[in-house]
Amino acid sequence: MPYSHLKPLLQPSGGKIVLLVMDGLGGLPMEPNGPTELEHAHTPNLDRLADMGAIGQTVPIRNGVTPGSGPAHLALFGYDPLEYEIGRGVLEAFGINLPVGANDVAARGNFCTLDADGKIQDRRAGRISNKEAAPVADILRSIAVAGVSVDVRHVKEHRFAVVMRGDGLCDEISDTDPQAAGVPPLRAQARTAAAELTADLFNRWIDAAHLKLADQKRANGLTLRGFSKDPGLPSYKDVYGVRAACIAAYPMYRGVAKLVGMDVIDFDGDAPADEFAALAEVWDDYDFFFVHIKKTDSYGEDGDFEAKSKVIASVDAALPQLIGLNPEVLVVTGDHSTPALMRAHSWHPVPFLLWAPKLGRPDDRTTFGERACARGGLGTFPAVDTMSLALAHAGRLSKFGA
Amino acid sequence: MPYSHLKPLLQPSGGKIVLLVMDGLGGLPMEPNGPTELEHAHTPNLDRLADMGAIGQTVPIRNGVTPGSGPAHLALFGYDPLEYEIGRGVLEAFGINLPVGANDVAARGNFCTLDADGKIQDRRAGRISNKEAAPVADILRSIAVAGVSVDVRHVKEHRFAVVMRGDGLCDEISDTDPQAAGVPPLRAQARTAAAELTADLFNRWIDAAHLKLADQKRANGLTLRGFSKDPGLPSYKDVYGVRAACIAAYPMYRGVAKLVGMDVIDFDGDAPADEFAALAEVWDDYDFFFVHIKKTDSYGEDGDFEAKSKVIASVDAALPQLIGLNPEVLVVTGDHSTPALMRAHSWHPVPFLLWAPKLGRPDDRTTFGERACARGGLGTFPAVDTMSLALAHAGRLSKFGA
Repeated sequence: MPYSHLKPLLQPSGGKIVLLVMDGLGGLPMEPNGPTELEHAHTPNLDRLADMGAIGQTVPIRNGVTPGSGPAHLALFGYDPLEYEIGRGVLEAFGINLPVGANDVAARGNFCTLDADGKIQDRRAGRISNKEAAPVADILRSIAVAGVSVDVRHVKEHRFAVVMRGDGLCDEISDTDPQAAGVPPLRAQARTAAAELTADLFNRWIDAAHLKLADQKRANGLTLRGFSKDPGLPSYKDVYGVRAACIAAYPMYRGVAKLVGMDVIDFDGDAPADEFAALAEVWDDYDFFFVHIKKTDSYGEDGDFEAKSKVIASVDAALPQLIGLNPEVLVVTGDHSTPALMRAHSWHPVPFLLWAPKLGRPDDRTTFGERACARGGLGTFPAVDTMSLALAHAGRLSKFGA
Repeated sequence: MPYSHLKPLLQPSGGKIVLLVMDGLGGLPMEPNGPTELEHAHTPNLDRLADMGAIGQTVPIRNGVTPGSGPAHLALFGYDPLEYEIGRGVLEAFGINLPVGANDVAARGNFCTLDADGKIQDRRAGRISNKEAAPVADILRSIAVAGVSVDVRHVKEHRFAVVMRGDGLCDEISDTDPQAAGVPPLRAQARTAAAELTADLFNRWIDAAHLKLADQKRANGLTLRGFSKDPGLPSYKDVYGVRAACIAAYPMYRGVAKLVGMDVIDFDGDAPADEFAALAEVWDDYDFFFVHIKKTDSYGEDGDFEAKSKVIASVDAALPQLIGLNPEVLVVTGDHSTPALMRAHSWHPVPFLLWAPKLGRPDDRTTFGERACARGGLGTFPAVDTMSLALAHAGRLSKFGA
């Protein structure tokens, strides 16, 4: 159980908490002495919150460790990623509402283009459109493998999720994606004796799938990776005693929220203002709100410093909408850094802002940025402490010991 | 295994890392509001690195715990000293290339001067010269004890190392050094039943030694301490995937480096410039370089504030030599604090400087000193995180999780 010392302290009620996560928020200067993306962005509202509240920086996993999106969010949610592991397959399936039962094995699939020799020509089938890919995924649903049932659902572009259901299944199977073109997809291989049956079943399904896809122009092959089971994470309600809602546009983040028992809210649009409006809609029904902004990370990975900065500014511009709801606690942070300079996730600490007008202790920092956060009143701390800090400031934790 | 979560992340290649350790670097002001040794030292190069890079401070073991040299270096190397224990005997033997096999027991020896009643008159035999002590150590090599072989080698002045080799040896034996004059050396005493045979064998060896030394003027007695076996530490190559070299003038530090599988480089001289020149010689052959400066600690223990400051300045003056090699990562820190004010090791956090021109996140600090480091961008963190930070900044770690 994550943070089991908190459980006996939980109060039956308390203030509302908003955890606003700008994915990959942390950045780096593009030149010596230059600003980071966040420091460069026009953020009068965030600066005002930093001025009134307190800031700091989090270490997502451990110093020097660059997190993937799954582990980074688990940490923010208070589950130490070195203790709780989630496979990509399960994340993908949960994200699109494809059920993964306790005995099921899920995998993430990619359509790919095979040449006449069965070698991979394009690992992403030319990133085919949703319109083209969805019916291909449906074709796969008709494949029968004796002894198990297999469900398939399209995710986005070349990506799909597959879940195998049956008895005695094991997820210790290596990826079939060779991570390179010019070679055929790998066979599903058991990493343990217990997984041999499951690997064999997946190979039978893959062989049948390749027959069915043979006449497709681009999506005539597939690879699978991230074979995994539901990790059975303890739920937010259990661990923190809060009714939790997730406002996220992207499937993967909806998936990880669902894994910890959050209700995932449906809404239209994917701009910050759309997400905040969706949050306002359900304000009365929940105690905790996880709001996820994806595009800071996407532009970071594209190496687009200006565009990442602009997303941050757009979040700032929409912020009054959120502040107007008067949350008891508003945390603004990222799950990890994605510096445009690196075009990738990184290990650098993540800016963290805590605005708790009633119970927060202000520091002497007046702006929200990496350099300011490195010297903020909250110090440098593990991301996994985020939830207990938020709960405390919302009056949701009683005293430990007499 | 230290930091086992890093192992799956290791990249086959990456940039070169230099870990420059000024022993006992951390200090204290001699009077209220005064500077520390480091703050007092003339360090234009270190200040420039601090300006371009990021600083912070490490906690060597745990807050409030004063480390010995062995544990402090283990921590810097990424091995939690509360988990991995190295005896002084093994350190001493490794430092002078005296082999300690898996079944052997090593001890550190001191020559002492005994009076006519066999009581210790001088615990260090008047710190006799190497020239006088080395032949005495050779005399001890001729002693035979039935069932085992015993090897002895002179270390420096009154110090020597002894290794007993045989079957069923156990190192749970208490020191024979009473840590006081006016009393005879203690007997080697087993702390467990399993060590009784070994203690007995050492006592027989000690008795024979005292007979052989009886006509020596000053070194007519000896004490043993730090009975210990090779702790079998996992090697740097295994844990971090780097070819590691040690540039250190003092045996003990060469010993601890060897224990984690570093190659120990031989060179002449012991000035910082000599060490940096030795490093340059082998620059192409290694990925990681541990450079050890001893005299900051020695002068700290002497209570000589000015001399300690001057050693720091001499390191600074030689630094361009090191920077000219263009390491991807240069860490400058200490293993612990040795404030001249205290004339001893202390528990105070240790200044830490990370210069990684490509991937480092700069902070707003512009000088290298204790007060600046306490508010640096890297925060306050366990020394045991040093290696993962260095590896990350050298591009040697991939992403954790999807």
